[in-house]
Amino acid sequence: MRVYNFSAGPAVLPEEVLKKAASELLTYGNSGQSVMEMSHRSKEYEAVHNECIDLLREVMAIPANYKILFIQGGAHMQFEMVPLNLMQKGTADFVVTGQWAGKAFSEAKKYGEANLIASSKDKTFSYIPELDSSTFNKNADYFHICENNTIFGTKFWKLPETGSVPLVSDMSSCILSEPVDVSKYGLIYACAQKNMGPSGVTIVIIREDLIRDLSETKTPTMLQYKIYDDNNSLYNTPPTYSIYMCKLVLEWIKEKGGLSAMKTHNEKKAAILYDAIDSSKIFSNPVVKKDRSLMNVTFVTGNEELDKKFIAGAKAAGLVNLGGHRSVGGMRASIYNAMPAEGVQALVDFMKKFEENATLQ
Amino acid sequence: MRVYNFSAGPAVLPEEVLKKAASELLTYGNSGQSVMEMSHRSKEYEAVHNECIDLLREVMAIPANYKILFIQGGAHMQFEMVPLNLMQKGTADFVVTGQWAGKAFSEAKKYGEANLIASSKDKTFSYIPELDSSTFNKNADYFHICENNTIFGTKFWKLPETGSVPLVSDMSSCILSEPVDVSKYGLIYACAQKNMGPSGVTIVIIREDLIRDLSETKTPTMLQYKIYDDNNSLYNTPPTYSIYMCKLVLEWIKEKGGLSAMKTHNEKKAAILYDAIDSSKIFSNPVVKKDRSLMNVTFVTGNEELDKKFIAGAKAAGLVNLGGHRSVGGMRASIYNAMPAEGVQALVDFMKKFEENATLQ
Repeated sequence: MRVYNFSAGPAVLPEEVLKKAASELLTYGNSGQSVMEMSHRSKEYEAVHNECIDLLREVMAIPANYKILFIQGGAHMQFEMVPLNLMQKGTADFVVTGQWAGKAFSEAKKYGEANLIASSKDKTFSYIPELDSSTFNKNADYFHICENNTIFGTKFWKLPETGSVPLVSDMSSCILSEPVDVSKYGLIYACAQKNMGPSGVTIVIIREDLIRDLSETKTPTMLQYKIYDDNNSLYNTPPTYSIYMCKLVLEWIKEKGGLSAMKTHNEKKAAILYDAIDSSKIFSNPVVKKDRSLMNVTFVTGNEELDKKFIAGAKAAGLVNLGGHRSVGGMRASIYNAMPAEGVQALVDFMKKFEENATLQ
Repeated sequence: MRVYNFSAGPAVLPEEVLKKAASELLTYGNSGQSVMEMSHRSKEYEAVHNECIDLLREVMAIPANYKILFIQGGAHMQFEMVPLNLMQKGTADFVVTGQWAGKAFSEAKKYGEANLIASSKDKTFSYIPELDSSTFNKNADYFHICENNTIFGTKFWKLPETGSVPLVSDMSSCILSEPVDVSKYGLIYACAQKNMGPSGVTIVIIREDLIRDLSETKTPTMLQYKIYDDNNSLYNTPPTYSIYMCKLVLEWIKEKGGLSAMKTHNEKKAAILYDAIDSSKIFSNPVVKKDRSLMNVTFVTGNEELDKKFIAGAKAAGLVNLGGHRSVGGMRASIYNAMPAEGVQALVDFMKKFEENATLQ
């Protein structure tokens, strides 16, 4: 029996996708091979690779002047590749809204001048700071945000107005959850293991004028975007099976009605869960309402022992990975695209029952 | 129907392993989740991760003072991580026996003084150069070889005697094919997609005294071995499913009798194929006999058109990916652990039939 998996990533994948992957695991189409076994230089694999790129472009409506790259190393690798590739003048602006935004900021300091424009650390990252664009550096090479904060459950619902300075967004935990206007960004990156596929591949969507030739520098070759772009992400062997899984997930999204349908589905699920929290006497969500994430919903009872009891009880009821990030504790339900509404309903039902028992005692 | 897949990598995987992976794809054990969906911080995934490490240590008899790391980016990333991490004095020795050894050499030049000790480029990398250890640099930080050349089909059957200078070996295409004495190396690296699993993970086996603290340098964090070692390769999300597949392959190797059994199996298959080539009137192998690889067997007819006809005919007969590397042409049969003897026999039978027809015309 499958459980309802609320993990923040790697995370639940659509059951239909897993079934298709299982059915094709020994032989893909009439190739006589598993996708895992295919030479990355074969026509069979190249078709998978290019279908994944084309589907992502279609589903996200990515304009023609943006390139789609598959890179290994996770968002962490992007914390370094972004400054290494984009810091031409040597300066960039950052908003720190949580742990990952903070790491992107501190890694960038190694490579140039990283300016802190705003932070929500003063209130444990429970809100998105109001930004005053007159405080932004006009000369910055880019402006970096982490658009959805996976750990604290916040989301930028309004993008910073950076003018001609390229906006760089870590979309790891919100990519594909709703339609976005890609033309507002200079670069988008997202590790796959939340809303797109298994871990091992990271998607970079980059405006082509931002791709620089670094071949004469000491920048590691594998950390140069141009190497990936020049070779359609086939400079060396890419993580082929992870890319294939992303393709299956993108097919599933398209079949379900694309990103508008995902948005409706996600808003519905988030409403069920936030309503339950807001009307509860024991659970509360620490995030400022207007900044709440649709993907990662955090909640606490305010009593560590009770939190632990809740997490253990939920697990026994087939609702798993509800513990908050190891750095903050409490509870967190990650309700990505692949989490069915039934899963959220089951969680809410369990919360109500738990609350009844807790208040009776 | 499954074909016999002679791809150099990604390559054939044991059919039993693929069947097991398919059966567990929706639910692993009684976790109620696919391995792909498991949080990398969960007990369930950590068990998979540590079993893979323990199995590799057991199967390769890796001494306790060597660490096993999972890193993304392929052998190409190691071409840069090795000099970035090991070049302390700033100099290393290289033997260039093919394209990948050459790339490792040229990438290292970016980071320090890379000395070319010997090369077999003069005869299209068809042999392993005799080495005179008096020409080695006593002060080198390491001595680098590519132990098995995937493209040209050569193998170091005798390791260079580097004394106290750590030997670094790219074992991508020969790891797990036979027992090795790990204590002779300072560092071994191998991308998984030849003899170990799907692409997306690279194994690094490093003697612990070679792991340096680079936290105060500008070396990208994700390119520092110590970060992986300090965090049991869980600093950020590792390529969990690729690691799981490696675990299944290692279980299969152990069950089949370990690396001694693999060696016997591989020697038998290589003998069948080399004997067929050596006794053929139209096929020949360009490699000096004593330097022949057990894993990658190259052969040519000397006639490009005939080569193409052979490759197309073989494909139609269910023997796929027999084309040589795009840089050299001709034919190449990669016969890794997972290639059954029946596959090699089928290839040899096809070669004989092809030769009969070719000589009749």
